[in-house]
Parts: sequence; C-alpha cells; structure tokens
Amino acid sequence: MSHDGLSKMTKIEVVTSGADSHAVRELFRTAGATGFTSLSGVSGLGHHGYHQGRLLFNDQATLELLITVVGDEKVEPLLAGLRPLLAESSGVMFVSDTYVSRPEYFR
Amino acid sequence: MSHDGLSKMTKIEVVTSGADSHAVRELFRTAGATGFTSLSGVSGLGHHGYHQGRLLFNDQATLELLITVVGDEKVEPLLAGLRPLLAESSGVMFVSDTYVSRPEYFR
Amino acid sequence: MSHDGLSKMTKIEVVTSGADSHAVRELFRTAGATGFTSLSGVSGLGHHGYHQGRLLFNDQATLELLITVVGDEKVEPLLAGLRPLLAESSGVMFVSDTYVSRPEYFR
Repeated sequence: MSHDGLSKMTKIEVVTSGADSHAVRELFRTAGATGFTSLSGVSGLGHHGYHQGRLLFNDQATLELLITVVGDEKVEPLLAGLRPLLAESSGVMFVSDTYVSRPEYFR
Repeated sequence: MSHDGLSKMTKIEVVTSGADSHAVRELFRTAGATGFTSLSGVSGLGHHGYHQGRLLFNDQATLELLITVVGDEKVEPLLAGLRPLLAESSGVMFVSDTYVSRPEYFR
Repeated sequence: MSHDGLSKMTKIEVVTSGADSHAVRELFRTAGATGFTSLSGVSGLGHHGYHQGRLLFNDQATLELLITVVGDEKVEPLLAGLRPLLAESSGVMFVSDTYVSRPEYFR
C-alpha cells in the first residue's frame, strides 16, 4: 500500500492484565513513544493465560489493550523492553505496519 | 516490514453480535486458535446490518469485537468456518498481517 | 500476504474525543463508507492531547475509537476530509491494509 501524504509507522498493541498496564505505559514512555491509546472492556483467553494452565476455556481474564504508534527507530528499544515484561506477565503483543498523516505526532 | 526476532502471523478480527459471539469463539477453538481477545463496548452500523435494511444511520447495534492470531496453516480452516457463520449473522471479519515475538503462543 | 477468496481493502481507525465522534461518523458516511465500528471505553494520552500541552502524563482523555473499511477509490476522499477535522480536534488516525471476504459489503 502506498498513500500520498501518509508516513509508514509501526503500531504496537499489547494485551495485558490491568495490574501490569501501568508498567507497560511506563515502558512506552521511556522508549520514547509520544502517547498511547488504552481500551478497557477487554477480556481474553488462551494467548494470555492458557499457557500457565490457570484458565479453563470459558474462564476469561480482565485485560487492557494498549496501543502505541512509533517511528522505526523506536521499535527495537520498545520491543526489547516489552519482551521480558510480557514473558513475566503472560501478556501478548502484536506488531503491525500502519500509516499516519502527521508523523511528527509520533516522534 | 521486517523486525528481528518477530514472526509473521495472521490476525483475524470479527465484529459480531453478542448473540453470535459464543459461536465465533467456539469456531476459533475448533480451528486450533490457542486463544482470543474480546472487546465489549462495541457498536456499529452499516457493515453489520445496513445490508439487511433493518438499521437507520443512527441506529447502532450492540456488538463484540473478537480478535485471534494464528499461524499460516490455520488461516484457511478458520476462514472456511467463519464465512458461513458471518453470512448468516451479518457480522464482518478483517484479516491482517501482524508480527509476534513468541509464535509458540499462537500455535 | 495473499489469501484465496479475500479482497484487499483499507482500514481507517480514528481515535477522537466523544465530542468530535459525530463529525467523524458523518464524514465516513459522506465519503461513501458503508458502515463503521465504534469502540467506547477508550482513553489515551499524548498522541491525542499532549501536543496541546493540556495533559499531564497520567491525565487521560475520554475518547472513542472509530473503525471503517473502504475500497481503494474511497481512501483519498476520506483522508482529505479527516485531515482538517483531526488537525482541529487533536484526534489521530491510523491507516492499514486489511483483507475481507465480502468486499461488496464495503463498497
């Protein structure tokens, strides 16, 4: 995809427990993200706890979805910080391409 | 996009009525998805009902957004199951590339 | 990515204040989008207000996430309408590739 006037950035979505959400937001900030979007009303199963054997299939955890968008140069530092945090907390992270119209908002 | 240490997966997002959400989750499970994320507080218009002529433009339905991430080999079976279910229920599905750091969580 | 039976479309996500949400939905409609999905329970920081110097880091705004999916020919008109609206309102927009199984729903 190529859209005139749009700049390619990286969107990082993290699904995490409410308890770990503050740590994820702090990590966004220290890695240089200029902001984030947070969604509540999130529940989940499997990706987020199944591997710890604590949840049955209808036993959903209360979670938060945190989204940030950063330029290329901030992706690796951000992922480097998120990996150990998510490994401990059984959160998951999705990394995708996205395009924005005002890249200076995210730098 | 190519990020060191990340694996390409497929993210499947389904917007469906609360009534059909259980069937979609069951389909995720039988197609081998290892988990899902569910968002409440979702409403929508058009894509989800307009075509049945039941909704005016400000008449929003209460919906749920279900997200799962799977490896390549599970995409086709999952889509094959979702298509007839969504055709019946006027739900919609979005399929996107995404990258994860721990692909074993999604296999 | 290439999936048999899926059509490439463009997903436009807008994070905006509740006050501006109606204007964004109207813009979707006049640009020819056939529908949208709206998520409540959204808060955010930085991308959405930081640049106006009104928010401290833990001072989150109440926002709405609006998602629409359109065919290629509607992307530019939609973005042309959203840019000035978001510039005024400090909202943000993310544009991504996505694939759908029933493209006629989005045209």
